[in-house]
Amino acid sequence: MSIATAVTRRLGIRHPVLLAPMDLVANARLTGAVSAAGGLGILGGGYGDEAWLRRELDSLQHIGTRFGVGFITWSLAKSPHLLELALEHKPSAVVLSFGDPAPFAEKIKGAGSILICQVQSLSYAKEALAAGADILVAQGTEGGGHGASRGLFSLVPEIVDTLGTKIPVVAAGGIADGRGLAAALALGASGVLMGTRFYATRESAGKDGAKARILAATGDDTLRSIVFDMSRRNVWPSPFTGRCLRNGHLDRWYGREIELLRHLDEESAKYANARDAGDFDIAAVIAGESAGLVQDIPTAQEIVERTVREASAILANGVHRIHLDQD
Amino acid sequence: MSIATAVTRRLGIRHPVLLAPMDLVANARLTGAVSAAGGLGILGGGYGDEAWLRRELDSLQHIGTRFGVGFITWSLAKSPHLLELALEHKPSAVVLSFGDPAPFAEKIKGAGSILICQVQSLSYAKEALAAGADILVAQGTEGGGHGASRGLFSLVPEIVDTLGTKIPVVAAGGIADGRGLAAALALGASGVLMGTRFYATRESAGKDGAKARILAATGDDTLRSIVFDMSRRNVWPSPFTGRCLRNGHLDRWYGREIELLRHLDEESAKYANARDAGDFDIAAVIAGESAGLVQDIPTAQEIVERTVREASAILANGVHRIHLDQD
Repeated sequence: MSIATAVTRRLGIRHPVLLAPMDLVANARLTGAVSAAGGLGILGGGYGDEAWLRRELDSLQHIGTRFGVGFITWSLAKSPHLLELALEHKPSAVVLSFGDPAPFAEKIKGAGSILICQVQSLSYAKEALAAGADILVAQGTEGGGHGASRGLFSLVPEIVDTLGTKIPVVAAGGIADGRGLAAALALGASGVLMGTRFYATRESAGKDGAKARILAATGDDTLRSIVFDMSRRNVWPSPFTGRCLRNGHLDRWYGREIELLRHLDEESAKYANARDAGDFDIAAVIAGESAGLVQDIPTAQEIVERTVREASAILANGVHRIHLDQD
Repeated sequence: MSIATAVTRRLGIRHPVLLAPMDLVANARLTGAVSAAGGLGILGGGYGDEAWLRRELDSLQHIGTRFGVGFITWSLAKSPHLLELALEHKPSAVVLSFGDPAPFAEKIKGAGSILICQVQSLSYAKEALAAGADILVAQGTEGGGHGASRGLFSLVPEIVDTLGTKIPVVAAGGIADGRGLAAALALGASGVLMGTRFYATRESAGKDGAKARILAATGDDTLRSIVFDMSRRNVWPSPFTGRCLRNGHLDRWYGREIELLRHLDEESAKYANARDAGDFDIAAVIAGESAGLVQDIPTAQEIVERTVREASAILANGVHRIHLDQD
């Protein structure tokens, strides 16, 4: 059973389920597993560790599935040769998020890749379409990691109303199961992109301690802030902030960022050590509000199939909710 | 045609569409119109103007439809006699939002009214259930007026997973049409509650200038802040902030709240004058991100019927998206 949409047709995939290109977490193994299951795996190109990217791209070529590569646009602008490296490996799609995609669009499309732009507002959506995007990912504030302030629920239909005749829209942020896929389709999207849900899979490169915290968290246990960016000395351009699970470090510094700045040498050293040691009471687990929907660590294939199966059941049963009255 | 759910059965209404009890905007006329159309109108009990409440309740009794009354819980705690006044008029339901419902639950249920609690997190949902709520409204951060930080998209299924076998859940915040109703049902909700969409109706008590601004706004044009609460000298308990349309006043003071505090005498006088004069470049139009989905000012009946018709079409067509494969 599968769900066919404008996105499955455009990407040539079986299921309208995309992997969020999570920095370090979405490695070749997870990317390959999502693609092999019929979705589209998207490698997390992250902040430009060239050795890592080269290794994972080579590994994907070895796996042999279709795949995409995601970049943080403002970061890619500082290391544009990484795009060349990615394009040499013939990705089906390149995902650009957070920044102006225009300088990279021609090169991506010229290389035969599909340009997917992740946007956080109607205004960014219009810019991405003007830059030549083939597919838009509408990302709600619910999502883990970096994002902006708009909620997914009205962002999707508004982008669809404004641009949806021109370009397919994928929903992201707060989605972790087939209910989310069915709801996204109802709002006019043609698929979903999931991060947190795929973080907690067997193939994900996330550490076991981080996955355990995602399972234990409710959706109330995340915050959007600049605390982890400050702590790892990588503050993003406005308006993008980062959502992660609450932990001791975040609870200590949230709302006290000026004080954190005063102690930054000490705190960033502590933070770097905690990341290396896998101490997630200091290091951030970068996950979204859908953590509250994540209760297990199955394979990526099981996630893709479960999502489509659950969404199909909802779609098939919808008609039974309608009552035809006499009047 | 109608859509039957646990909420329509519990409330004895035809359509799973509820009116948000917007302060002053949701008056007897709008409340009566939503109920007459088959939804549930809910009078905005607001901050406790007793003369206004008495007049609108009398007017509803005259109209003769089923109705609900909504209160701001922390404000009601300061004027508990308003609940007695409301209950004398035999509302089908009382909606309590923002604060501890426990002190009022027994009185409401004892009077034969259904207790609906609006919640903004999983934790508030658990408290409301423990207090005796009959129905929960899960309100996302997208919504206009007061609210908290969680997005609707994961809040609904998480509350449904945790409490949904015990109590029906209604989705609110960011919903303005049948796509939103169909998506809410897919996520496991049993109905929707809409504010901004009903603000821009003929029956709404909102001023024409405010309605015109809702029509002109995109969903990018709102902000959640404490600026309008400060400006009208009515700051809410944490964690509740207020979302409204951006205007000259909000753009001037957003992020500069300490400076606003220094000029508060002057600015609050200006704000009060602007409210009286209907100058919405200073006075706030309290609307949510779904403003970007609102393009007309029809009757409330047209909104209810259009929402159910559109949702029904989506529910009826969902099955056609599924493809059965050979494998």
